[in-house]
Amino acid sequence: MKTDIAIARSIELDKITNIAAQIGITDDHIHNYGKFMAKVPYSLIDEQKVAQSNLILVTAITPTKAGIGKTTVSIGLTLGLNKIGKKAVVALREPSLGPCFGMKGGAAGGGYAQVLPMEDINLHFTGDFHAITSAHNMISALLDNYLYQNRSEGKGLKEILWKRVLDINDRSLRYIVSGLRGNANGIPTETGFDITPASEIMAILCLSKNIEDLRRRIEKIILGYTYENEPFTVKDLGIAGSIVVLLKDAINPNLVQTTEHNPAIVHGGPFANIAHGCNSIIATKLAMSHADYVVTEAGFGADLGAEKFFNIKCRKSGLAPKLTIIVASAQGLKMHGGVAQEDIKKENLEGLKNGLANLDKHILNMQSFGQTVIVAFNKYGTDTPSETDFVINHCKSQGIGIAVNKAYSDGGEGAVELANLVVDTIEARPSDELSFTYNNTDSIETKVEKVAKRIYGAASVEYSATARKMLKLIEGTEIEHYPICIAKTQYSFSDDPKAYGVAKDFSLTVNDIVINNGAEFVVIVAGPIMRMPGLPKVPQANHIDLADGLIEGLS
Amino acid sequence: MKTDIAIARSIELDKITNIAAQIGITDDHIHNYGKFMAKVPYSLIDEQKVAQSNLILVTAITPTKAGIGKTTVSIGLTLGLNKIGKKAVVALREPSLGPCFGMKGGAAGGGYAQVLPMEDINLHFTGDFHAITSAHNMISALLDNYLYQNRSEGKGLKEILWKRVLDINDRSLRYIVSGLRGNANGIPTETGFDITPASEIMAILCLSKNIEDLRRRIEKIILGYTYENEPFTVKDLGIAGSIVVLLKDAINPNLVQTTEHNPAIVHGGPFANIAHGCNSIIATKLAMSHADYVVTEAGFGADLGAEKFFNIKCRKSGLAPKLTIIVASAQGLKMHGGVAQEDIKKENLEGLKNGLANLDKHILNMQSFGQTVIVAFNKYGTDTPSETDFVINHCKSQGIGIAVNKAYSDGGEGAVELANLVVDTIEARPSDELSFTYNNTDSIETKVEKVAKRIYGAASVEYSATARKMLKLIEGTEIEHYPICIAKTQYSFSDDPKAYGVAKDFSLTVNDIVINNGAEFVVIVAGPIMRMPGLPKVPQANHIDLADGLIEGLS
Repeated sequence: MKTDIAIARSIELDKITNIAAQIGITDDHIHNYGKFMAKVPYSLIDEQKVAQSNLILVTAITPTKAGIGKTTVSIGLTLGLNKIGKKAVVALREPSLGPCFGMKGGAAGGGYAQVLPMEDINLHFTGDFHAITSAHNMISALLDNYLYQNRSEGKGLKEILWKRVLDINDRSLRYIVSGLRGNANGIPTETGFDITPASEIMAILCLSKNIEDLRRRIEKIILGYTYENEPFTVKDLGIAGSIVVLLKDAINPNLVQTTEHNPAIVHGGPFANIAHGCNSIIATKLAMSHADYVVTEAGFGADLGAEKFFNIKCRKSGLAPKLTIIVASAQGLKMHGGVAQEDIKKENLEGLKNGLANLDKHILNMQSFGQTVIVAFNKYGTDTPSETDFVINHCKSQGIGIAVNKAYSDGGEGAVELANLVVDTIEARPSDELSFTYNNTDSIETKVEKVAKRIYGAASVEYSATARKMLKLIEGTEIEHYPICIAKTQYSFSDDPKAYGVAKDFSLTVNDIVINNGAEFVVIVAGPIMRMPGLPKVPQANHIDLADGLIEGLS
Repeated sequence: MKTDIAIARSIELDKITNIAAQIGITDDHIHNYGKFMAKVPYSLIDEQKVAQSNLILVTAITPTKAGIGKTTVSIGLTLGLNKIGKKAVVALREPSLGPCFGMKGGAAGGGYAQVLPMEDINLHFTGDFHAITSAHNMISALLDNYLYQNRSEGKGLKEILWKRVLDINDRSLRYIVSGLRGNANGIPTETGFDITPASEIMAILCLSKNIEDLRRRIEKIILGYTYENEPFTVKDLGIAGSIVVLLKDAINPNLVQTTEHNPAIVHGGPFANIAHGCNSIIATKLAMSHADYVVTEAGFGADLGAEKFFNIKCRKSGLAPKLTIIVASAQGLKMHGGVAQEDIKKENLEGLKNGLANLDKHILNMQSFGQTVIVAFNKYGTDTPSETDFVINHCKSQGIGIAVNKAYSDGGEGAVELANLVVDTIEARPSDELSFTYNNTDSIETKVEKVAKRIYGAASVEYSATARKMLKLIEGTEIEHYPICIAKTQYSFSDDPKAYGVAKDFSLTVNDIVINNGAEFVVIVAGPIMRMPGLPKVPQANHIDLADGLIEGLS
């Protein structure tokens, strides 16, 4: 089969004005970026239509190095729904340059189930990540300047919590000391960089209702604490307006198209391991305002992206999926069942059977939110009929709907079975009202304990001294009533990236706690997860090239 | 008079497709960014037309805190030329977010002589600076990763020359130590950030002929030196292709419009104090391919921008202006004549007379390149008739053409006198063939000495130990034959920002030398200039805001 980029290149794109017209958006409402991308103003959200639209969440089993294909299924299902005559739009996150040039590659789907133009989407796109990076670092520079200019006037901070961000995998920037070489060059400070998808500005953008709400949240960002233990915010710095100005375009969702010329909304891109992992509320609502079925995705496994989708995004927005789809692949299941990576393409029913425990745990978890759950079995070329049947029978025996997805190789035609199952299931037994894992009024520790035990299957939770200090700081403030956003490895239910399958009887270790007062959640850093990734020995950047005007090496 | 942004907002913009059509560029050639901005592919450069077009350089006396208005004159002249029936296009640099949110404000002209939409041009524009920032820092991350991954295999570097960049004024990032907190987080390294306009990638983008030339130059970038004293380049790192991919759109010039709907090309933005200070060669040539008169600008005073325009940009591109215009204002001249800033708006003919020495030195300097020189007297509301007459008579008595520019208050109508003088002067006595200040074959020290003595008026040049070490490293290599790019304060002919007027008998101190092997020039850092600016006590960011959907505080 052709590479993703070769397939992308072989498809003649429809003008974005025509794509917009498909969902009733006229030329004068959109802001073009070339002929095939546009921004659509969030003012086109229609809450009445949002209430009538069917939202579908796509999530997955715990990811492995063997790949699952969640984005491919999300796009494929959208192709399939359109194929059977439904008006469906996919609402996805934007890719980050970090993984794109690092290990993971891009995030625009694969095969014949992609969003296009994939090169632009995977590169600078419409500049949203750059705007977020600028806004974040502008705050950093203005904060440091404030402290520097007022250093002799007793206006310092006891503790600075705000760091910087870059949309690059750069381990060297995790921990730095800035402001070196004397008085003219700032105040020496221990600080560091996170990757842009972990920026609080990214979270704020994705959770804001509108530009006024964005401003309100930016003003609330806590940059540090004064010597009187008072929070020092962006509002105190007096620069919220200039940060809003930097984000005035980024707040509007981006419109592109699928490989079969269906509208696709791609907006916001927090990672699901180190951040809340969902596209923007604005984008989901904009899609729902213009389609009967909206397929959206939450990052990594259902323990990460889906848990935060429900407990953070749905809680804050009132959105509720009619259905949750868990994507599973034979290869992924076999890895969870203890099969070594080099043997992953060989039939192994025993391994597959063992691995299904991972799927089953995710199904139970999703049902705990009141969701109707079905499984999309993402078919790879190496899967044997016995393996496919084994997974199908396993699900059916439990009363869980399952369909095979072949959109990667066959486009929308390969997802008709899945699309029909989705429509029928939503018709016959849509999800119950949402039931969250914890209450707003629970303490932070109770919230962590509930997610750790109920979703991850942990036996207990431990806190580092740093984390305990932060708990103390939060105690008794409004921050205590925010949802939590757990940063944890994507490779396991536990905080140990090597514990495949279903980890049991483990203790979750909270190493750090980060207050995101503007995003209105509390980041719980569990285990050795880094909010700034590193690069592998041979990064993808070594394979990306421009030859005869065509880009190679993006996927 | 209204503020710049109020004027900008009061003008109904013409669609960018109509602007493009004015110069014969059709819809299918351009890449829209909204309705009023577009990228134009550099493939539309026509060298035959470039050879026939009249290039006009706009430069200025030494800038002061009182302002000169060089960009306003460049745009105003273009308005005036169009007003008298000439086909004229202005080719400018893109503004940086650093000064825009810091002290200087934006860089899109002023009053009724602006390029529009000024808000977007002054903010993220079409993302060129962000692409450059990403490309630069991607190299940094890939270099650090290479050193980290191979740390036990003896592939280290004795010296790392490559730093990072951000398009923000942030003094705290000038000197940092990265890679702290143990083995998992990189190798501890003394490094720092420059501002994006000082990035070698910015210089490369502005000096490249095409994408192949861009690639050749990126491969040549020297990142450091091995223990065998061999240069270690981007090519050695094997990632040039991925960096070219990040710059594939940024290499194409941006098309916008003036306040009177004339086409304007805005592309590239190196500062003239800490970098080479000119817009891109590609943009200038694209403008010349589509207009009989092209007005371009070099940053800050003629000792900085214009010197580099001739000795670097013209030398490398073969471009040669028919005319050089030096912009002067009564307020600026009075400051050079010793008048205190608080008295600058009062008539003071004695101060004005003393200040004219600064103008005269710049005129002589520009003539040393073989240029025909005229003066644009940029009229401010507070100038008295006696002051204006004094400057006019001074120039005329020396045979230097001079015209008063009132484009700031009157638009193109206010620049008709200047436009007529420009056309007549180019007709009657265009510039001679270019004569450079130094030869390629001169040593670096000779080049520095020639610029310092002939252009700045220095008596001697001194080198720090660091600079001497770099001279030694360069000696005998091809690098010795590159032009030099002197980084120096914009406020004086000398390296002392307080020495107004015409500094004399001073010694220029070279503190550092930076090899830009990809840009093919050598940066000479003279005096206490910083390649990463700081912010003032109350930055412009404190005044920028979004109110009722309208931006305030940009100028």
